[in-house]
Amino acid sequence: MNLLLTGNFDAAERDAWASALRQALPGHRLCLARGEAADDQIDAAIVANPPPGQLQGLPRLRLIQSLWAGVDRLLADATLPAGVPIARMVDPAMNAAMAETALWATLALHRGFFGYARQQKAAVWQQHPQRRADEVPVLVLGLGQMGRTSALRLQQQGYPVAAWRRGAGTAAPPGVQVHTGTDGLHTALAGAQVVINLLPLTPDTRGLLDASLLARLPHGAGLVNLARGAHLVDADLLAALASGQVGHAVLDVFHTEPLPADHAFWAHPQVTLLPHVAAQTDERSAAAVVAANIRALADGAPLAHLVQRDAGY
Amino acid sequence: MNLLLTGNFDAAERDAWASALRQALPGHRLCLARGEAADDQIDAAIVANPPPGQLQGLPRLRLIQSLWAGVDRLLADATLPAGVPIARMVDPAMNAAMAETALWATLALHRGFFGYARQQKAAVWQQHPQRRADEVPVLVLGLGQMGRTSALRLQQQGYPVAAWRRGAGTAAPPGVQVHTGTDGLHTALAGAQVVINLLPLTPDTRGLLDASLLARLPHGAGLVNLARGAHLVDADLLAALASGQVGHAVLDVFHTEPLPADHAFWAHPQVTLLPHVAAQTDERSAAAVVAANIRALADGAPLAHLVQRDAGY
Repeated sequence: MNLLLTGNFDAAERDAWASALRQALPGHRLCLARGEAADDQIDAAIVANPPPGQLQGLPRLRLIQSLWAGVDRLLADATLPAGVPIARMVDPAMNAAMAETALWATLALHRGFFGYARQQKAAVWQQHPQRRADEVPVLVLGLGQMGRTSALRLQQQGYPVAAWRRGAGTAAPPGVQVHTGTDGLHTALAGAQVVINLLPLTPDTRGLLDASLLARLPHGAGLVNLARGAHLVDADLLAALASGQVGHAVLDVFHTEPLPADHAFWAHPQVTLLPHVAAQTDERSAAAVVAANIRALADGAPLAHLVQRDAGY
Repeated sequence: MNLLLTGNFDAAERDAWASALRQALPGHRLCLARGEAADDQIDAAIVANPPPGQLQGLPRLRLIQSLWAGVDRLLADATLPAGVPIARMVDPAMNAAMAETALWATLALHRGFFGYARQQKAAVWQQHPQRRADEVPVLVLGLGQMGRTSALRLQQQGYPVAAWRRGAGTAAPPGVQVHTGTDGLHTALAGAQVVINLLPLTPDTRGLLDASLLARLPHGAGLVNLARGAHLVDADLLAALASGQVGHAVLDVFHTEPLPADHAFWAHPQVTLLPHVAAQTDERSAAAVVAANIRALADGAPLAHLVQRDAGY
């Protein structure tokens, strides 16, 4: 089959992906630009937030395979051809990386390690009381692959873990208390010392992390946003940090990335900021995931990890 | 029985311990100072690095039970009565806390989170390549309760874990490669991206973390010292950080505590410093451990967690 690789990555990234994909897909032709193969010969596009319009005029296109797990930016392209199946990336290495970041942030919040880092800057030697993991309930927002993996790893460390998803879905991991709907969210927030956001970004979840949500947490809780910047109302978090309602926040994603140099988060002592690295797609394992879907397409077998366009993820 | 609680803690700490111990030991009398009971009526001492001499002149003393896991300072008291069994603290909550700190430090070193914290200070947005956990071998020095618990939890997260102990000992945790002796240490160091020190402090291990040991690590490895400050030659670590031989160090313990304000570690960008909080004894679970040994003493049953004075731990 003829495959088109297109995205907003730089030349080095593109070459690394091309190399991994060609190794995983012997016998298929990978084009790195429109025009390398005739438009009416492209069977599938492998995409990483391509420039809008890149996927127009490909009459034979039967699969759009995303290299990224989040497809909100892809779906925002109004020129995206209707009726072509879209698959998101579900990469075990990426799930593991996300769970590592969630676990690191939770351990640091639970054990006060961000506070000790502030003390080090001020050359202050002061010990604070230590809590056991079973005294620190953690709430995971979202129960996709990443939410599920994170919940399980947190539970292995002894944290009482609850999870929230908007509606009904697949079975919860054993031992994880699952809440649904608005009432369920309110109940879950009231019992959480640490909240980890792993929701998809959809019209329903945009701006969910606002003043009204943060006010339902116990005073001094920790917030960890690893999903999308647009889930969070920045001004509401800044107010909650100022009042102490949120004790500390770990933020990996932002409304504008890179985060503008004058944003208050950069120098905020209660904010730990990461440059969107909570879980990078691992091209080695991701190429195998792409290859499996391309082979399914070639064989007329069912495609995996398909996006529901109307749900937005 | 008549029990004497003595240590270098402040009044609030002493009262918290007294309360937890009295709750765990109904029917026994806990004295908070010499003289509350006659010297020849004290059966056991429950100690937290007591001032030297505190345990002299107690002819009936049959157990010295430490509240701390490390007994190097206790054993350094030349007036410690000979022939009285000494038990160290082996507290499951403390093992868990130590494993949490080891895991947090390893995750942060593996995923570059200390480096991202430095970038945040400088308002730099830059992503770095991500490694999988199975690409980051971790070496645990010491296979006591804490080393074992830490090794198991690291392994659960996908790290290849090796451990080193000086001599033969109990069986290794499944899947953990155990090295012994000097040659074993050299082999283990050569393969480690992260080294976590959880050895007891003895004449044999004092100063073990020196230039010759650090030189055997791969360039840029991470060092985590959670055991005793005297394991480490501070000047050798500073030189290894300057050359990049050690990329980053996490230090919880120091030759002098609190760490003097003019020590180079405080402001060093490659040092993350904790004020001896990697694992605090949890008075709730520790009181139960003490109570079990006191009851064993009263019943003439075997005592648990006894220290070998000649080995130093």
